[in-house]
Amino acid sequence: MIKVGVVGGTGYTGVELLRLLAGHPQVELRAVTSRGEAGTPVAEMFPNLRGHLDLAFTAPDPATLGDCDLVFFATPNGIAMEMTPALLADGVRVIDLAADFRLRDPAVWEQWYGMPHACPELLEEAVYGLPEVNRAAVSEARVVANPGCYPTAVQLGFLPLVEQGLIAPESLIADAKSGVSGAGRKASVGSLLCEASESFKAYAVPGHRHLPEIRQGLERAAGRSVGLTFVPHLTPMIRGIHATLYGRLRDPGVDLQSLFEARYVAEPFVDVLPAGGHPETRSVKGANHCRMAVHRPQGGDTVVVLAVIDNLVKGAAGQAVQNMNIMFGFPETAGLEGIALLP
Amino acid sequence: MIKVGVVGGTGYTGVELLRLLAGHPQVELRAVTSRGEAGTPVAEMFPNLRGHLDLAFTAPDPATLGDCDLVFFATPNGIAMEMTPALLADGVRVIDLAADFRLRDPAVWEQWYGMPHACPELLEEAVYGLPEVNRAAVSEARVVANPGCYPTAVQLGFLPLVEQGLIAPESLIADAKSGVSGAGRKASVGSLLCEASESFKAYAVPGHRHLPEIRQGLERAAGRSVGLTFVPHLTPMIRGIHATLYGRLRDPGVDLQSLFEARYVAEPFVDVLPAGGHPETRSVKGANHCRMAVHRPQGGDTVVVLAVIDNLVKGAAGQAVQNMNIMFGFPETAGLEGIALLP
Amino acid sequence: MIKVGVVGGTGYTGVELLRLLAGHPQVELRAVTSRGEAGTPVAEMFPNLRGHLDLAFTAPDPATLGDCDLVFFATPNGIAMEMTPALLADGVRVIDLAADFRLRDPAVWEQWYGMPHACPELLEEAVYGLPEVNRAAVSEARVVANPGCYPTAVQLGFLPLVEQGLIAPESLIADAKSGVSGAGRKASVGSLLCEASESFKAYAVPGHRHLPEIRQGLERAAGRSVGLTFVPHLTPMIRGIHATLYGRLRDPGVDLQSLFEARYVAEPFVDVLPAGGHPETRSVKGANHCRMAVHRPQGGDTVVVLAVIDNLVKGAAGQAVQNMNIMFGFPETAGLEGIALLP
Amino acid sequence: MIKVGVVGGTGYTGVELLRLLAGHPQVELRAVTSRGEAGTPVAEMFPNLRGHLDLAFTAPDPATLGDCDLVFFATPNGIAMEMTPALLADGVRVIDLAADFRLRDPAVWEQWYGMPHACPELLEEAVYGLPEVNRAAVSEARVVANPGCYPTAVQLGFLPLVEQGLIAPESLIADAKSGVSGAGRKASVGSLLCEASESFKAYAVPGHRHLPEIRQGLERAAGRSVGLTFVPHLTPMIRGIHATLYGRLRDPGVDLQSLFEARYVAEPFVDVLPAGGHPETRSVKGANHCRMAVHRPQGGDTVVVLAVIDNLVKGAAGQAVQNMNIMFGFPETAGLEGIALLP
Repeated sequence: MIKVGVVGGTGYTGVELLRLLAGHPQVELRAVTSRGEAGTPVAEMFPNLRGHLDLAFTAPDPATLGDCDLVFFATPNGIAMEMTPALLADGVRVIDLAADFRLRDPAVWEQWYGMPHACPELLEEAVYGLPEVNRAAVSEARVVANPGCYPTAVQLGFLPLVEQGLIAPESLIADAKSGVSGAGRKASVGSLLCEASESFKAYAVPGHRHLPEIRQGLERAAGRSVGLTFVPHLTPMIRGIHATLYGRLRDPGVDLQSLFEARYVAEPFVDVLPAGGHPETRSVKGANHCRMAVHRPQGGDTVVVLAVIDNLVKGAAGQAVQNMNIMFGFPETAGLEGIALLP
Repeated sequence: MIKVGVVGGTGYTGVELLRLLAGHPQVELRAVTSRGEAGTPVAEMFPNLRGHLDLAFTAPDPATLGDCDLVFFATPNGIAMEMTPALLADGVRVIDLAADFRLRDPAVWEQWYGMPHACPELLEEAVYGLPEVNRAAVSEARVVANPGCYPTAVQLGFLPLVEQGLIAPESLIADAKSGVSGAGRKASVGSLLCEASESFKAYAVPGHRHLPEIRQGLERAAGRSVGLTFVPHLTPMIRGIHATLYGRLRDPGVDLQSLFEARYVAEPFVDVLPAGGHPETRSVKGANHCRMAVHRPQGGDTVVVLAVIDNLVKGAAGQAVQNMNIMFGFPETAGLEGIALLP
Repeated sequence: MIKVGVVGGTGYTGVELLRLLAGHPQVELRAVTSRGEAGTPVAEMFPNLRGHLDLAFTAPDPATLGDCDLVFFATPNGIAMEMTPALLADGVRVIDLAADFRLRDPAVWEQWYGMPHACPELLEEAVYGLPEVNRAAVSEARVVANPGCYPTAVQLGFLPLVEQGLIAPESLIADAKSGVSGAGRKASVGSLLCEASESFKAYAVPGHRHLPEIRQGLERAAGRSVGLTFVPHLTPMIRGIHATLYGRLRDPGVDLQSLFEARYVAEPFVDVLPAGGHPETRSVKGANHCRMAVHRPQGGDTVVVLAVIDNLVKGAAGQAVQNMNIMFGFPETAGLEGIALLP
Repeated sequence: MIKVGVVGGTGYTGVELLRLLAGHPQVELRAVTSRGEAGTPVAEMFPNLRGHLDLAFTAPDPATLGDCDLVFFATPNGIAMEMTPALLADGVRVIDLAADFRLRDPAVWEQWYGMPHACPELLEEAVYGLPEVNRAAVSEARVVANPGCYPTAVQLGFLPLVEQGLIAPESLIADAKSGVSGAGRKASVGSLLCEASESFKAYAVPGHRHLPEIRQGLERAAGRSVGLTFVPHLTPMIRGIHATLYGRLRDPGVDLQSLFEARYVAEPFVDVLPAGGHPETRSVKGANHCRMAVHRPQGGDTVVVLAVIDNLVKGAAGQAVQNMNIMFGFPETAGLEGIALLP
């Protein structure tokens, strides 16, 4: 049983994290903070939690947080980097669900996030929390940078190919589609039901913040620079990301199905579908799995990988809990056994 | 640990029942039967179950089923009544999620369901599985008739008023709205996304099969006949029922909020919202709760009750598991602790 | 050809009005005003209008508006009442799509809208623009109060019964369901896709601003006071209102179908379905029709009327154009011939 | 005024075609045929047409059809090719909205459609009805093969690049997303609201029938063979296709924006957005436009084209009416002036 605090719990990753932590056998939730909502019972804002979580939001209090074993940040970008050094000094470990610690190069971070980094000295130490790549490092980490939603799906889909050097690294294409919850719970016209339902569009084609994050991960896996075109799209549903990935095969003779199955055989949360499969986002709705399939259409030299996650679970809160489990030596699937809701 | 069989598992109540049973600590699932899909792995039809349920559908086999402690029927109407007598003879207990045992009067059943009843002699014995009314009888039952989805929401909403004789019984109105999963997983034009989304309609206004079931339940609670107008509607979403109930108060001075809170204070799955509340169906998506609120608009003599359930959980599979828990002495919430998915 | 101005064109009733006016053969659109968006091309905000409307938003200019034959207000409540007196003085006629002129009693208006009325002396003169009731008065009006969306559906559904005194007036029930566009295009958390889709809820059960408007209309039709319980609900779709109306029949022998057909036989935009029908909101999506059906379930004394409209068309912009047609002697269906989009 | 027949009008392209023809000033609709629905009023099946179309479905009658100037086939594949030769002999012109005349090579057709072609001799004569490529030939055609929905969006998006030889033709990628109406109005489990909403998936990745059609069109434009990877996806909405197209630029110095604007400057139904744009499918909902934008992300050598259409309009019925207009010398936009419905 560990003592856990959540800073910022009023967004969609926040409520999903609370849903998972409320059902986690090893977690004692000490505080859920929100300056704006201090005093409001959490279950008043999120009625699904009625009867499951009796805390009220509180203003962030250093003493309370400093007494935790672990603090999650489910905040906008730029908050965790301000508060993390003091928590580390108190011996608290940190998982940031925002982007503050995802990029190792502070200059790149500042370019994409438009503000100076408050603790660039921690970027080297922070561990990028994609367990399928960094499990050992996560287990020792003081600070875990929980990956972005698109980067989780795109990297997991590309990794088997890129790690083995099987595709031409200079022209990778990631065509990704996200449900609207990826845009968060803030009031904005673009995320209104009447704007975002019954419609489909690409956005941020010139450049999206997840581009450098994905590229950094793929370059680490490839051991060289990669060229990536990343096009995100908004799809009219609440949850789910579907990444459709394209690469040019260097050796069309490779057995792609076996490659993918072997890469992920030991992974509790990655599911490679039988050959010919087409994963649906709903097959992971509410669950921490990434399901994927690999195709070589018409026997050509283009490989197509299809990978789906729930952006709020494996793409955010679920992966954060998975990282917590690894950090504290719990079974990696603890609190994450929930089966996807279908239909 | 009990041995459980599921007859008919290819519909939406079927997959939801399997999702709940796969995570239930006291259940050993022995067989999931489907004549049409015999041999197909269950998780091939329902990919959310990949990694959680390794059974394949089988043709119904009397020996296997007869060896179970409990058999659920998640079949179309008319199947359970054919197979139940033999199962009872083998000492197996039965929960029917269809309508075969819901009406006590075989003549009424035959009028509404359009076929003769195969075992009318069991109608008297069968227990109507609404735990909030019949918990004790359920615990002893050999055959439990799991209530319909609309009847669950409508009865739970009206019960505090009807049991106490607080509203005029001759003119109750139940205006109910259901998600499309209530229509089942069969291929039909009316349930296509392109027919049922971005639209709203009433249906079966002249008469719906749940009308006699609701009336029977309310009359039992009232101890007299009741007049009920029941208008079901189809709403463009997957899961959820919202019942809006209207009654004429006989004594406008009654404290409705206290009445409702007192009626359900000990119920693990009924949640009365604070005064002035408006329950949302999404607050119970995937969960076994019924949340409700009671209003007296403009201080008039019309009481309005708002009650929401997930039609596949408290309105079907979850309530069936709740009944199982009661029948076998498990904690009533076992396997039903899942928190609703929001958003 | 008349000169038309639109004040406030950045909301959903605004864009719908512009869609209809852009295709109207008798309208020359002179100005679309918005302080906040002055300078923005209208078609940049609403890309469906690209190639159909070449105006940019402008700040409201008295000279330009004063030179129009007609000005529509598609503004928040409280704007039209400020600007209308000056327009009338310039000989401009006004149609207000907001609520400023809907209630005849300024005290009631102030109670429900929470501000003093700027020109109570006009409330008597203003004509409530429900053509099926007030066609002659509309044709002469200087100021037309375009009805609210719920009030249009509810009144049209009740009118044949109330005008003839066929139902008990003291206990009418209107259970109404609206798509989310009824909440407007302003950024608010409650209207986000992730909040409002895959869910259903009632709201404002204690009291909604459309209650006094509906009651006023029904009382005028009944020639006496009426008691009305009005419960609005939010349904997860963009457009459409479905009103389910309940009344107690005084004479169960009346031929309801003939009554309704006779009442609306000459109305170009009211369509009474054949007996037994269930209108769907999608059958009027984008069209100015109200379709309805009348039922007497189980032969009881409760009459059920089902009425559907597109809240943005017959419930707002389309009805406003219909009123314009009547005011200026155009064919009543001019510019409103568009067929509903199905699917 | 021409006499028009529609064979097969019970699907979504059928009802959309009837919606457009009912409002077309030059069309007299003589017959809408359906063997299965003969006798049913069209407006009973499609209530949006109530008051706009008074025909009933009839069994196909050679005399009636043979007396028409034009017959549309809105039938499953394989019907038009059976009936067309007799109609041509009667002097009737034909527009087939199905695939019977889309591929010039009968062997390729038979491979992808799984049946022998009934009149291969007409494949040479039939004109592929993409007006932006074949306007002149369409005007003279006896038989027009109306393009598929995906092929319309993908070809229009690629044409400016492929015609000028600006991208490497051996590795084109078309990642396309369609609303569910593309699957038609037939009862099938996969198109149920509960299967297809709140989910996103790719399908037919190994090979889709629109692949050879697109390839044929692009090869004609390129004057050489092309390599194309085409991945269609199902997106949870009713109408709309979004094609995201990727190509490798041969000359990164080309001014893509000017190229696209120049290519389509004279096209009434192709709208190139300003530089940096992201077209939304809802901007063409119910309208015959294709809107598109072209990007070169991060200044790299990959060009990304975004193109949206309404699959039932520009992707089917609207394009068929556009072809009719061209064939009979009507204004090309006649009957197609409707503005997209937004929201």
